[in-house]
Amino acid sequence: MTVVAGGAAAARPRLIRAINEQVLLDHIRRSGPVSRSELATLTGLSKPTVSAALSSIERAGLVHATGQRTGSPGPAAILYEVRPEAGFVLGLDVGREYLRGGIADLAGTVRSRLSVRTKAGDAMARVQELADLATKLQGEAGIQASQLVQTVIGSPGVYDPRLDTLTLTGRLSGWDSPAVLTALRASFGATLMIENDVDAAALAERVHGHGRGVDSFAFVSVGTGIGMGLVLDGKLRHGSHGVAGEIAYLPFTEGSGSDARDARKRGSFDASASAAAVVRAARRAGLRGASSAEKVFAAAARGDAVAAAVVAEEALLVAKAVCSVIAVVDPDLIVLGGGIGQAPGFLEAVVGQLRRLAPVLPDVKASVLGTETVVAGCIAAGLDQAWEQLVGQISPT
Amino acid sequence: MTVVAGGAAAARPRLIRAINEQVLLDHIRRSGPVSRSELATLTGLSKPTVSAALSSIERAGLVHATGQRTGSPGPAAILYEVRPEAGFVLGLDVGREYLRGGIADLAGTVRSRLSVRTKAGDAMARVQELADLATKLQGEAGIQASQLVQTVIGSPGVYDPRLDTLTLTGRLSGWDSPAVLTALRASFGATLMIENDVDAAALAERVHGHGRGVDSFAFVSVGTGIGMGLVLDGKLRHGSHGVAGEIAYLPFTEGSGSDARDARKRGSFDASASAAAVVRAARRAGLRGASSAEKVFAAAARGDAVAAAVVAEEALLVAKAVCSVIAVVDPDLIVLGGGIGQAPGFLEAVVGQLRRLAPVLPDVKASVLGTETVVAGCIAAGLDQAWEQLVGQISPT
Repeated sequence: MTVVAGGAAAARPRLIRAINEQVLLDHIRRSGPVSRSELATLTGLSKPTVSAALSSIERAGLVHATGQRTGSPGPAAILYEVRPEAGFVLGLDVGREYLRGGIADLAGTVRSRLSVRTKAGDAMARVQELADLATKLQGEAGIQASQLVQTVIGSPGVYDPRLDTLTLTGRLSGWDSPAVLTALRASFGATLMIENDVDAAALAERVHGHGRGVDSFAFVSVGTGIGMGLVLDGKLRHGSHGVAGEIAYLPFTEGSGSDARDARKRGSFDASASAAAVVRAARRAGLRGASSAEKVFAAAARGDAVAAAVVAEEALLVAKAVCSVIAVVDPDLIVLGGGIGQAPGFLEAVVGQLRRLAPVLPDVKASVLGTETVVAGCIAAGLDQAWEQLVGQISPT
Repeated sequence: MTVVAGGAAAARPRLIRAINEQVLLDHIRRSGPVSRSELATLTGLSKPTVSAALSSIERAGLVHATGQRTGSPGPAAILYEVRPEAGFVLGLDVGREYLRGGIADLAGTVRSRLSVRTKAGDAMARVQELADLATKLQGEAGIQASQLVQTVIGSPGVYDPRLDTLTLTGRLSGWDSPAVLTALRASFGATLMIENDVDAAALAERVHGHGRGVDSFAFVSVGTGIGMGLVLDGKLRHGSHGVAGEIAYLPFTEGSGSDARDARKRGSFDASASAAAVVRAARRAGLRGASSAEKVFAAAARGDAVAAAVVAEEALLVAKAVCSVIAVVDPDLIVLGGGIGQAPGFLEAVVGQLRRLAPVLPDVKASVLGTETVVAGCIAAGLDQAWEQLVGQISPT
């Protein structure tokens, strides 16, 4: 708790002014067009204080007057809103097969969105593809690179800021090389942020999905890879070493699709329950045509008993992971995401097992967000960061 | 962040005064004997503000002048400290075999401490034994019941304040009956707090043990029962339904001492790795004289190969639980507690397995606190609560 008490106020005018400006900006961001006297009521600040802070942030180009509210008694009130063009944010999603990206303005409106199939043979070629995608996105949005205030890349793996390393990058071969970080910073600037892709999806879920207004939730993604984004007290938890949510390493080895080599490389639970493990389990059970997890799930839906048993086992494994999350942190809500997590009927099968396993049954929902989730989460993280940065740059008057 | 900004200050004098008094009390509590001008420096408040707030909390009997500091230039400074007799806190630990308790003054000094073997045949008799223990503790401390500001009971199970229920009480039969809560409140007053016993031990670890100054840690207790207290960002996490840390429900079933009936009653991991499961595993492996987990560990220490295999399997199971905690929340530190968790050599065996299993290896330490841990944690929780309550009672001047 920071308390700026009466006695100390006079000694710190610049700090107080900065805090007041930030408080005002937060309210304008959240409330949309709003008048000076509404801001005074919302913030508890005096009208002269609001006026001074407003002119400072208006001069800095972060907000502008957008019109007048008429109809209420007294003189018409000027309304202020965020100036969308005050800055732009770039979000990128690095997958093994696709690269996706989007640019949003400071008001959060997406100005361009693209997705390309990657042809990169190695990590450096993939960095180049990302840079090309960014250039195209700027063209589509009609902006210059210099107008980008913040870039966020959603990537498999764990970025540890203390060590400045990217590790546990799973299926993205070569992506954990230190040269990748250097090349990414050369392309996207030193302020580049790297967010775990599932953590980014959890942020999107918090802003656009089931996580809205929920204090604590776990976004559990099961598909090609396995991961979790954990939001506690409204904030994404990265953990002490950046590995919070790395549920691929839950020590379950009992899946019939389990693979020892995969377990060493990507964690036991990933090796037992990823899409590849579902395919292995189906093949070992003698299912024909099990070339993808999607096909196994489709066969189960058509009534194939062997496929149904594989899907049931997968639901049990995922329920065990969710049960572990409940036993450790007990969130309000679990959101299932990813190709398997969002498959029709899968939620019900998982909940059925949870009833038997878990000490309590929280809300469990399947995500309704689509393939743009990681990009949306990167943009959300980038906007928060951009605002902090821009507010810090307001020059003292 | 609570910001009391310049413009609003004049409108909220009472709130600001209360905040200033609380800030001062916090500093006096933490720093010990301290002068007015040191308080002004520590808090950033002006000396007149400090003087006004100090006389208010001195009038309320919460602090007193304790002497003067001489030796520095200028007039001798009066030093203020917490008045220990301003209130007392009672902590109680309800075990299956022992009841323990302690009374501390508001400065945290323990004034009396007792431990009795319980003879209670049912839950109501156990409540009566607790009440008797409390009376004895008051006698030993030389205080009246009316001087107790807060009582905290450390109990197995989960108290859910939303439902006002105590559940998952494990081996304490009948303790989850609603009548128990009613009887406890009749004996200890409506302000009685119930804290999970392992959570209380985690609080003790934070105040007196390895958790001092650590931002996030998990206290994993393995013995007669199994549980975890999770401290994140310096605060004990209870979870949305009070079950955060109920790692007895981790879905591991592979232990050779596992028992299906126990798993249904107390969770799979408890049924695989509690002291009773160690005894079962040892017996199933043909070990003679395996009447307690302690004896199994002693046999392993003497070089018995069968016992050593049982202990190694136990270390693997505990490592899997710790690995799950790391994969979900990634704390700075893991503290192992309980009769098994603190057994000699056990820590090293668990860490050995973790190296193989976990995505990262955080600090792992064995607790050095003894049987008074739960009582100490209850007193710590009670002191925090008592301070909040007492500060709230300071009458406006």
